[in-house]
Formats: sequence, C-alpha cells, structure tokens
Amino acid sequence: MILENCWLVTMDDGGSEYARGWLQVENGVIAALGAGNPPERGEDLHGAVVTPGLINTHHHLYQTLTRARAADADLFTWLKTLYPVWARIDDQMEYAAARCGLAELALSGCTTVFDHHYVFPRGAGDLIEAEMTAARELGVRLVPSRGSMDLGESDGGLPPDSLVEDADTVLAETDRLASRYPELVVAPCSPFSVTGELMRESAELARKLGLTLHTHLAETVEEEEYCRELYGCTPVEYLGRLGWLDDDVWCAHCVHLSDADIARFGETGTGVAHCPSSNLRLGAGVAPVRQLLDASVRVGLGVDGTASNERGDLFLEVKQALLVARAAVGPRL
Amino acid sequence: MILENCWLVTMDDGGSEYARGWLQVENGVIAALGAGNPPERGEDLHGAVVTPGLINTHHHLYQTLTRARAADADLFTWLKTLYPVWARIDDQMEYAAARCGLAELALSGCTTVFDHHYVFPRGAGDLIEAEMTAARELGVRLVPSRGSMDLGESDGGLPPDSLVEDADTVLAETDRLASRYPELVVAPCSPFSVTGELMRESAELARKLGLTLHTHLAETVEEEEYCRELYGCTPVEYLGRLGWLDDDVWCAHCVHLSDADIARFGETGTGVAHCPSSNLRLGAGVAPVRQLLDASVRVGLGVDGTASNERGDLFLEVKQALLVARAAVGPRL
Repeated sequence: MILENCWLVTMDDGGSEYARGWLQVENGVIAALGAGNPPERGEDLHGAVVTPGLINTHHHLYQTLTRARAADADLFTWLKTLYPVWARIDDQMEYAAARCGLAELALSGCTTVFDHHYVFPRGAGDLIEAEMTAARELGVRLVPSRGSMDLGESDGGLPPDSLVEDADTVLAETDRLASRYPELVVAPCSPFSVTGELMRESAELARKLGLTLHTHLAETVEEEEYCRELYGCTPVEYLGRLGWLDDDVWCAHCVHLSDADIARFGETGTGVAHCPSSNLRLGAGVAPVRQLLDASVRVGLGVDGTASNERGDLFLEVKQALLVARAAVGPRL
Repeated sequence: MILENCWLVTMDDGGSEYARGWLQVENGVIAALGAGNPPERGEDLHGAVVTPGLINTHHHLYQTLTRARAADADLFTWLKTLYPVWARIDDQMEYAAARCGLAELALSGCTTVFDHHYVFPRGAGDLIEAEMTAARELGVRLVPSRGSMDLGESDGGLPPDSLVEDADTVLAETDRLASRYPELVVAPCSPFSVTGELMRESAELARKLGLTLHTHLAETVEEEEYCRELYGCTPVEYLGRLGWLDDDVWCAHCVHLSDADIARFGETGTGVAHCPSSNLRLGAGVAPVRQLLDASVRVGLGVDGTASNERGDLFLEVKQALLVARAAVGPRL
C-alpha cells in the first residue's frame, strides 16, 4: 500500500520532515518513504500529518470502566475508593474495557500500549487473555504484564486483604503467561501494595526468563512518607535495595525524586514512564523530566488509566508533557 | 422547544443536578427546567450532559490564522515573530478567522466570547464589523472590543512602529464603535505596547460612555522587568497609578502577582481572565488562582488566541485550570 501527499514526520536522527511526502507499507511495516511523488500512485492523504505510531508506556485498561470517580481525591484516597469497585471486574468487563480503551488510544495516534494490570480478583477468568483478544481484534500492539499485590491492609498495605494474592500464585501465573506471551512484563504494583519479598522474587523470575520489569514509583509525597516509615528510606533507595534499579526496569510516575535518585536512574539505566495529566489530576505534582533527560534517563510517555486521566488520548499527553515542562523551566526545553 | 432525558447541571447556588432532567427553551432563553418527565414530550438527549453555556473571557479570534508559529518562544519573542504577520490582516481574513475560531469554541460548549482585538493595520477595513458578522451567522454571542497599541519600537515599545496607531484615531474609533455596539469593551493591549497617556484616556472615555475596560497584565517576568525599568514599579502598581484598578476592569493572565497585588485586586474589584494553557505554552507560568479566589477576586477562564494555545476548546481549558491548580496545591481545591 502506498500513501501519498502527506506531511511526513520521520523522527529519524536528523529530524527529517517532508512537507509533501509518501510512504509505502508492506505487511504492516513501513518499507520505504520519500518526498514528492511516490514510485507509483497511492492513496491521497490530502496533506495529513503522518508520524511514527505513538507508544503508551503506562496504562491500566481496566480503569476505562471507572472514570470520574473520587474526582477530588489524592492517590491513596482515590485507590481506597476504587479498590472495592475494581474487586468486581471479570474477563468480560476486562474485554469491554480494553476494546474501548484501546480504540480511544488508537484514535489519538497510539499503536503500542503497555498495560500494567495488577488487579486479579479470584474467579475473574483470564483477564490478560481477554485484553489480548481485544487488542488483536483492533490491530493495536498490546504489551501485557502480570502485575500483583500481596501486601494487604492487615499487613500494613493499602489494598483490602480481599484483593491481594499470595506470592506463589503470582509467580506461577507469571510463569504461565510468560510461556504464552514472550513480551510479558513482570509488574508488581507499588511499594505500598507489594511485599519486598515478592518484589525480589519477581525480579529473579523476570531475569531468569529474560523479561522486563515495571512498577509504580515515587508518585506522591504520601508514598515517600510510607516508605520512610516502613522501610526507613526513600522509594528509590528501597527499589535499589531490592535489585530493581537496572536497565531492564522502568518505573511509572517518578514525580518525587532527589538529585541523587535522578543520578541513580541515569547510572543504572532505569527508565521512567512520565504521566503528566494523571499526576496533575491526583495532585501528585510534576515529574522532573528535564533533569531526568539531562541525566540520560530513558523517559517515555504514559496516559495512565483513564480513571486518573479522564481521557485516553496519547497525543494530548504529548502536549501536556510540553506544557508542564514549560511551567517549570520556560519555553526553551 | 423542550429537551429531555439529559443530565442537567444547573450551576445554581445550591449546585442542583438532575440525572434525568429536562429544559424548555423560549426565544433562545431557558424558560423552565426540572427533573423527570417534562410537561410535554420533547427531543430526547439520550443522557447528554447539559450545562449553562461557557463564557470565554479572553480571546483573539484573528490569531486563529497564525497557529503553530514560534512554537518554542517566550511571549516577547513570539509577539515579535508574529507582529509582521498580523500586520497583513484585513477584514476578509478577520471574517474567516472569526468563523473558524467561533465554531471551534461553540463546539466546546462556549456560547459567549469576549474578543480582545488590538491589531488594526491601516486600510484593513472594518475588522470588528467582520467578526460581528461571523458571530451573528453562527449564533455565538460575541462581545467586541476596541483594542489599541500606540507605543512603537522607536518609543521603547515592543510592536513595530508600522503597527501602532495614534491615540486620537484610537479614541475616535472607540467612540464610533461604542455607538454601534453598546457592549463594546475598551481594551488597550498591554504595558509594553500602549502609552500611559492612552491608558488614562481610554479609562476616561470608557467611564464617560459606561463601557468596561480590559488589558493584558502581569503575564511574564519579562513584562515585570520592563515595567520596573520604564515605570519604576510592578505592572499592577502601574495600573493602579493609571486609575485602572476598579470593578469595571478585568485583566488577562495575572500570572506574576505579589500578595499585595492580589489584595489590591480583591479590594478594588478588579477581575482576572485566567488562561492556563496559553500561560504554559509561552512558559509564562501558572496564575495564583487559589489565592485570587481567597481574596474574593472575580476570576473567569480564557482560551486566549489559538496561536498561543493551539486549540480553541474552552471545555478543555476548564480541565486545564483544575490540573494546573492541583499541581500547585494538591487535589483538594
């Protein structure tokens, strides 16, 4: 298939753009592109802008079902309000949520979605299979994860005991899903919902199987207080102790980082999923993206679940990232 | 006309909302509303949310023609890049810009637009008449202004000399337009493009004719430096000297205000048009809206020209105002 008469933004190292470009697609992959007239006539895009597909590096598709709740709450209050609702999802709901959420993301230019899924109520069916089915039907690349929570309220965690799993189940399920989805990401939820033991075992399993690792980190001041109280250190120091600061790991949010934390991310190759709208919506703050980039940290963009964003629009998130950065450092990034 | 089966957000003092409401429109005005079934059957809105029309308190419709220029510039650089482009507008362009800009705003729920127009190239035709024609055709309420610039580069101002007018022309034109449009706002552009003399004479004329006053104020640190250098005071102090702090005045932006400035706005009844996206886009900062509201200042929302916003969406601006406020003070506003 040939597409012509488009404003082509290649995003190559030279930043090449063609005001009147064309591209040739073969087997779903761009095989050739150029300026002016294509080798043969193709579909006229009438000057539309064409960019590489956008990649959403942090999302929770199931949250598509629970928008506009706890609208004036901070992270912990929002989570505590929603946990009991999320405890009722099943595979049919997950399928519906993924269909809607992925379609919205695709409409905003997103072609690859990493879905951080960490809510697995007992008897809910195969939630990962449900969302992968939706993605196949829509033609969106979905990178699945096996998330987890094993630190319930009665052990000092945030989620209700009814919503946490035991570590053995988590690891066995991760192993099973990894054999079906080689791109699976091992993704325990956060310092306040997962034990240090499961964090360590998750990393071990991931490295044994050659999988990557993901978690929420340093999202709010409350999380930092929680870590200081329970673990006697900052969230990043805590992650370091667990063997989680490495180039096979990326963390969502990273709003509250010290200069030492940022340097540590850079030295270890640990990546960051920047979710500006969600961070504002929950009053978490603004991640220090300029400083992260200056420290050579890999930074991607995430919409985050639409329950904490209210929209599933990755292109709007590109703009939001630019706007919040300018609030901090002015127009010249 | 009766509309039924809508989620009705009345915005009355009690914050009444009806999950299944109806409203009756007579001669373009809401005559009655209620919950449940209307007095007679009407058009089914299928659960759509209905709110009062949103009011855009600061816009520049002509800028619809010049989006995505000087995309990485601060305010002064952006203005200097665009002045020569704006110097070429005429009444036909203004009509086209207003048609497009007003339609976009209407699609975002906006029914009333205040247009701050301050660029009047010689021989451009009747620009205010052009935009009022567009507004009549589209059914949007447009509150016009007679803006002005009389402080050119050679006198220490920012705009090129070719784009400024003499004060007599400005005042005569304001007088002429006021007799045609009783809702006209007298709106000299800014401290760095208008002489103190024209600011004073504008206020005198407005008060003689019973018109309100509007200007840009305290948008950037550069503006504050400019005022300190030329006038030996902050922008707000400068406005106070000119007799412009009063309840017939509202100012756009007001990002850089001291505690004393905020108190002064509250005491005098001076209003503020808050334009969060534009302020971020130009790296100006975030206006202290929480503090302004605490000081009983009247605060409205503005999209600002789409050349510094890139979108003409007032509903998105409602969300942006919430998000930037949370960045500053957390989720509980």
